[in-house]
Amino acid sequence: MATDTAPPTPGQERFLAELLEAGLLLDCGVPGVYGHDAVFEDVRERLADRLSGEAAARGAQRLRFPPVLPRRQLESSGYLASFPHLAGTVYSFSGDERQAAQQSERAAEHQPWDEFQAMTELSLMPAACYPVYPAIAARGALGPDGVFVDAGGAWVFRHEPSLDPARRQIFHQHELVRIGAPDAVLQWREEWAQRGLELLRSLGLDAELDVANDPFFGRRGRMLAQNQRGERLKLEILVVIEGPEPTALASFNHHRDHFGGLYGITLADGTTAHTACLGFGHERIVLALLRTHGLLPDRWPAAVRAQLWR
Amino acid sequence: MATDTAPPTPGQERFLAELLEAGLLLDCGVPGVYGHDAVFEDVRERLADRLSGEAAARGAQRLRFPPVLPRRQLESSGYLASFPHLAGTVYSFSGDERQAAQQSERAAEHQPWDEFQAMTELSLMPAACYPVYPAIAARGALGPDGVFVDAGGAWVFRHEPSLDPARRQIFHQHELVRIGAPDAVLQWREEWAQRGLELLRSLGLDAELDVANDPFFGRRGRMLAQNQRGERLKLEILVVIEGPEPTALASFNHHRDHFGGLYGITLADGTTAHTACLGFGHERIVLALLRTHGLLPDRWPAAVRAQLWR
Repeated sequence: MATDTAPPTPGQERFLAELLEAGLLLDCGVPGVYGHDAVFEDVRERLADRLSGEAAARGAQRLRFPPVLPRRQLESSGYLASFPHLAGTVYSFSGDERQAAQQSERAAEHQPWDEFQAMTELSLMPAACYPVYPAIAARGALGPDGVFVDAGGAWVFRHEPSLDPARRQIFHQHELVRIGAPDAVLQWREEWAQRGLELLRSLGLDAELDVANDPFFGRRGRMLAQNQRGERLKLEILVVIEGPEPTALASFNHHRDHFGGLYGITLADGTTAHTACLGFGHERIVLALLRTHGLLPDRWPAAVRAQLWR
Repeated sequence: MATDTAPPTPGQERFLAELLEAGLLLDCGVPGVYGHDAVFEDVRERLADRLSGEAAARGAQRLRFPPVLPRRQLESSGYLASFPHLAGTVYSFSGDERQAAQQSERAAEHQPWDEFQAMTELSLMPAACYPVYPAIAARGALGPDGVFVDAGGAWVFRHEPSLDPARRQIFHQHELVRIGAPDAVLQWREEWAQRGLELLRSLGLDAELDVANDPFFGRRGRMLAQNQRGERLKLEILVVIEGPEPTALASFNHHRDHFGGLYGITLADGTTAHTACLGFGHERIVLALLRTHGLLPDRWPAAVRAQLWR
């Protein structure tokens, strides 16, 4: 099933109710899809500025992409083999005026109207780093230092409806991407994992760095997850928001030559570039801060506020 | 046909090529879907700050929503009767492990795989004001002054692939929404149409305000368009970016009691609230500025820069 998500714990349900009651989140009627008020957004935007500022200070160039990805790129990426249950595709109307009228009538009665819809050339954005690789590949061979891209807090989609407020169907994933020589890329990933850990601890969060795996689909996925852990390709920063399990606030991913080979990104010497990316989940970090320091950011500890309001 | 869009003019094609060559836009491989570089985004973000600043100075409260809308809300809104050709819906995988493997194989070969996808509870966001109405309705009856919401530069989707760089499939629509008594709402719409015109002229754009209509679908749509014009329900600010036709940079829409009735938004006296919204197209305004003042914002006239970099 595509919606095979664990039910929320009583603590998660209570925290979601508190966030909605305080008006920080706005219920849209579908689990995992929420609006934000000005208080929530203020914290989130200051976090985004802080992350982009840290990246800019280390030479990152800013690129920004919309929340949709060409379907052809999704098809070529291998994402559907690993995460078929999470991907979203975009459909639109295909038909004549009579069919448009039928579609509208059915929809207004909340009856099925999918027979009038056809797959478009677009999918929802599965991960914010995906559009970066072809954009860099289009420039030709890399310079000697490679590239460091700040893709900002982009919207990404995961089809996993849940009543855990930390598990959204659509959320801001702040992606930083490094493309370059194998050693430089691996070192960058390690440095940023430590920097991310220090940053989140400086915000008063009880954060831990650990080896992790992606939520690969099915039986084959269990083997992929074991390999990923064995080769230490994914690290995560974990915080307990509403237990029992900790929540990943950030992940640090080493792709080796997967994306370099897929998009033909080459180093100055003609060999295939390696890549790594890291993603900070804006909403999860804001939720961890609200859970740890309370629902009123005005009253957070001065040391925490000094890290964001500066 | 859903993709019945006019072909671009030679001038539009040339302007698009210049924007891509300069790196301001990043080609994603699908018409009307582009990334932005830091120069483009800097102008866009300063424009967004300026618009939100003008709204905040007049008492707007900030709310922010994701680029997807519950499908049920789309179904109830009447959007599919008026714009079936523009709406996007979100599908995702439905099936077992064997089907997931088939889907992945088909997709990797760029063969059809839509048989494995089913409609979800979500659609793409058709207009950035849509989630505002139920969020305000959920608060109960309005106070005497009603509500003014700044929904920010939210992502909206229109399925109209085009090589005109000013016609995107996905773009930032900066929506301001007024909900209140009939007279107050109409007056707000008129004031903001003038304020928007002055703002865009202060940026050196040769902007005109005019009565307009939405791109309603089909034969019935022509009648809806005539009615909309006759009742002056939609105003637009128009600028020639790449002719021959001018492009709408902003629109100012009076809904009378449509959304108030749909979502049960009531005034203090129990009568149905009226609503109006206005949308500034971030990308179109940035494109108009780049076309008018050149592709290097650093060299724009000082009077223009002073309006945004202040």
